[in-house]
Amino acid sequence: MLADRLGPLTPSKAAALTDAAVPPSRLSGPPLTRLVAAAGGEGAVLVDDASRARHAGGQAYADLVRRRRGDASAAPDAVVVVPDAAAVQRVLAVCSEERLAVVPWGGGTSVVGGLDPVADGCQAVVALDLSRLDAMVDVDETSLLATFQPGIRTPAVEAALERHGLTLGHVPQSFERASLGGYVVTRSAGQASTGVGRFDDLVAGVRLAAPAGELVLAAQAGSAAGPDLRRLVLGSEGTLGVVTEVTVRVHRRPQRRHYEGWMLPDWESGQEALRRLAQDGPRPDIARLSDPTETEVSLSMSRAGRLTRAAMARYLQLRNVSTGCLLITGYESSDDDVRHRRRRVRGILRKAGAVRLGTAAGRSWEHSRFAAPALRDTLLDVGALAETLETAATWSRLPALYDGVRRALTDSLGRCVVGCHISHLYSSGASLYFTVLAAAQPGGEEEQWTRAKAAANEAVVAAGGTITHHHAVGTAHRDHVTGDLGGALGVDVLRAVKATLDPNGVMNPGKLLPD
Amino acid sequence: MLADRLGPLTPSKAAALTDAAVPPSRLSGPPLTRLVAAAGGEGAVLVDDASRARHAGGQAYADLVRRRRGDASAAPDAVVVVPDAAAVQRVLAVCSEERLAVVPWGGGTSVVGGLDPVADGCQAVVALDLSRLDAMVDVDETSLLATFQPGIRTPAVEAALERHGLTLGHVPQSFERASLGGYVVTRSAGQASTGVGRFDDLVAGVRLAAPAGELVLAAQAGSAAGPDLRRLVLGSEGTLGVVTEVTVRVHRRPQRRHYEGWMLPDWESGQEALRRLAQDGPRPDIARLSDPTETEVSLSMSRAGRLTRAAMARYLQLRNVSTGCLLITGYESSDDDVRHRRRRVRGILRKAGAVRLGTAAGRSWEHSRFAAPALRDTLLDVGALAETLETAATWSRLPALYDGVRRALTDSLGRCVVGCHISHLYSSGASLYFTVLAAAQPGGEEEQWTRAKAAANEAVVAAGGTITHHHAVGTAHRDHVTGDLGGALGVDVLRAVKATLDPNGVMNPGKLLPD
Repeated sequence: MLADRLGPLTPSKAAALTDAAVPPSRLSGPPLTRLVAAAGGEGAVLVDDASRARHAGGQAYADLVRRRRGDASAAPDAVVVVPDAAAVQRVLAVCSEERLAVVPWGGGTSVVGGLDPVADGCQAVVALDLSRLDAMVDVDETSLLATFQPGIRTPAVEAALERHGLTLGHVPQSFERASLGGYVVTRSAGQASTGVGRFDDLVAGVRLAAPAGELVLAAQAGSAAGPDLRRLVLGSEGTLGVVTEVTVRVHRRPQRRHYEGWMLPDWESGQEALRRLAQDGPRPDIARLSDPTETEVSLSMSRAGRLTRAAMARYLQLRNVSTGCLLITGYESSDDDVRHRRRRVRGILRKAGAVRLGTAAGRSWEHSRFAAPALRDTLLDVGALAETLETAATWSRLPALYDGVRRALTDSLGRCVVGCHISHLYSSGASLYFTVLAAAQPGGEEEQWTRAKAAANEAVVAAGGTITHHHAVGTAHRDHVTGDLGGALGVDVLRAVKATLDPNGVMNPGKLLPD
Repeated sequence: MLADRLGPLTPSKAAALTDAAVPPSRLSGPPLTRLVAAAGGEGAVLVDDASRARHAGGQAYADLVRRRRGDASAAPDAVVVVPDAAAVQRVLAVCSEERLAVVPWGGGTSVVGGLDPVADGCQAVVALDLSRLDAMVDVDETSLLATFQPGIRTPAVEAALERHGLTLGHVPQSFERASLGGYVVTRSAGQASTGVGRFDDLVAGVRLAAPAGELVLAAQAGSAAGPDLRRLVLGSEGTLGVVTEVTVRVHRRPQRRHYEGWMLPDWESGQEALRRLAQDGPRPDIARLSDPTETEVSLSMSRAGRLTRAAMARYLQLRNVSTGCLLITGYESSDDDVRHRRRRVRGILRKAGAVRLGTAAGRSWEHSRFAAPALRDTLLDVGALAETLETAATWSRLPALYDGVRRALTDSLGRCVVGCHISHLYSSGASLYFTVLAAAQPGGEEEQWTRAKAAANEAVVAAGGTITHHHAVGTAHRDHVTGDLGGALGVDVLRAVKATLDPNGVMNPGKLLPD
């Protein structure tokens, strides 16, 4: 199918990590000695090629392409694996004094260049690996609050909470690898954000270690005590300091999880039905509507494909329409609440012309909900460019945003497949998540995508969308983020905050703030 | 009843506003001339005594006492009534250059000294009256977003929205007088915040005019584009600039409003039931639980008092308990949703031992929901000190916070009545709203309350509560706000933000930030 849609593909082979060309480390002498002492001993500072190569970027298409090529020229000069929050504070002090750039490193899943080891005038770059800060610090079952160290990954979070009958419920596609601290600084949104909310909403308290000292923003239920500085830490992308502790709102594990599939007559009626659910309720906890292209790709790749295609064929026959849009709805709650909401959602969807595909389609989505990142490697093997981008806008701006981004991508890439889905609902609007496939240009992969991405960024800004709904800014969006930050004065405000917390400018240089 | 509980009271008489002693204005010469030009002509700058006296503070007990005494010594040097947002920007430029302190003025309802005309080294103080910026600028019925100028009051907001079948649903006790811009900068929470959320949650976009320029944070549905700078404007209390436009999330007018009363056996079981509703749902949109003292006072003052007292007597008889706690629950939604939630809430409350008092108690609450501020004047007439304070904490800290504040107040005031209610529910905690009555000390009213308030502030901090849940910081809380701001470094961050937006420090000096 791919060759048919994308034209001839040139397969490529991935280099082994051990073959990666890593330049010599710029870190030596007194700065290295001080760093070792601050981090807690020799074993805490890794300068071997393999460790450094593993920390040379995240999971953007450009990262993957460079890695496959065996290019680790951008590897950090050292990887510092800290044992505790006190060590983080000490390491930051040394890095600030010695002018060593610090890239905080959680799960390594940034897709926007947030982990690029940019020196920006510093002597060297250090990746600050937080994977050993992986404990649950406290759980308050009365207040449904749990405090974690930043390096813990979501499966471990859920395992720790399960022992108390609790769940966090934050389930992004990076669920298996991403760290809790990463969710804070990138303002993550998970697949169930329509129900549990964005990660922004789940953070009740946070501690930030910065070169200038520590910010301790304890958990509060609600407050009017000045601007909420937690919201400055949320989305700070490591440019202000390192999150050393986060207190999240958790909830009791749901009695029931129910996912099911629907087929909507078209993209417009699907959007209208979702808007109705988001604004007037009841909301499903998960709602994911695919456009016709994504629907077609999903069905052809789905485990339950045959079953769903049969249902779709029945649908097409019954309704005499030529296309359809797949919708997955999910509920995670008490039996009574799931029953009540499902009944009412069903009525609203049927009025919108939807045909129920049943739980097989829901299970199929559930089964493959974390599969896309791995699938990308397979696509790169066969010679396809595979990348995603996401945005959001108010409901009234959504149609123009959808058209504008699709046009920008297809104009730039030529023969390509651009699918899209809506997966995060708000009363005022929704997200758009685009998946792009094209024949990769051998040797020119990065330029090919950089050009397409720039065109998409411009289309997003032109249509009044946000430059990123849940992937953060990193290096990929910094040239187009000024509007989201309120204009040049907003950028000045963030620079002033950074100058206070990070006076020597060592924290994650080159990310978030435009030049 | 009051004399019985508080001891002998000394009635006092309020001076007429026209008798107020207003000092000469410090504003004259070129600064005044420039201000007149910037504001749009002679009529826009008021220097008469009555206008100035009217802007000499807000609605704190100290403000009321000073006003009754005919003391307007703290009146601003001029009142500038701006016609549009462009004039605001011009006035701020002049004030910054001429070192004139600016107190942004909306509804004048601050109860924390947020409107005190503090010069703090400036040449003079100007009250910037925003009451003429009272228009609805735009309504987007598709996205349920409406944009207003900052000086509009809530009844006018609701009237404008009603024409589109919409409502904002933000209903604080200051509903009739407070301005929309005021809600933004004080992080207001209304009586239905359990349902519609805090004002924080309702703000989708905002424009801020600052001496250094303009921040334009357009409405977005959801975003991960760096820290959300809207959250720096929320709670900024006029210290960073003036809100000139705000876009709020609105919703369709509810089919049904239903309020009803319940009697819970005691404060502890009432809290436990509210916690259960807040965490596991379904939530009423309004939930207000009075402690035994407030219950007693409410019933003795209530219009439906006789009816409710009869129900209470019946309850006491049935349950053989000696006290009870009044709970008001309210629902504002579709018929179907109200029915569904009421049925489930009823089951949970009955399990907690609650007895239903019916809709008369609900109507009684609805009738008097905005009456308290006016009642305070009556109490001052008869010689009572009447003031409120509020805080919030996590559920696990709530009992100690309640005990600590009550003890601090009674230790400081001696013979007094301290009632309390919970009226804002979160999954992680709730607010506590205290009402304090005591015999006023004639001639020493301010000192009497300042002492009691300082003791209460210390008790709040000691128990891990927030220094303010919805009244903001102003002058009343700035000595105790550092912990809420994350410590000294958090205060430094806010100072850096202020230095960027307000480099000459003219915006509302002496508020929010500790010395």
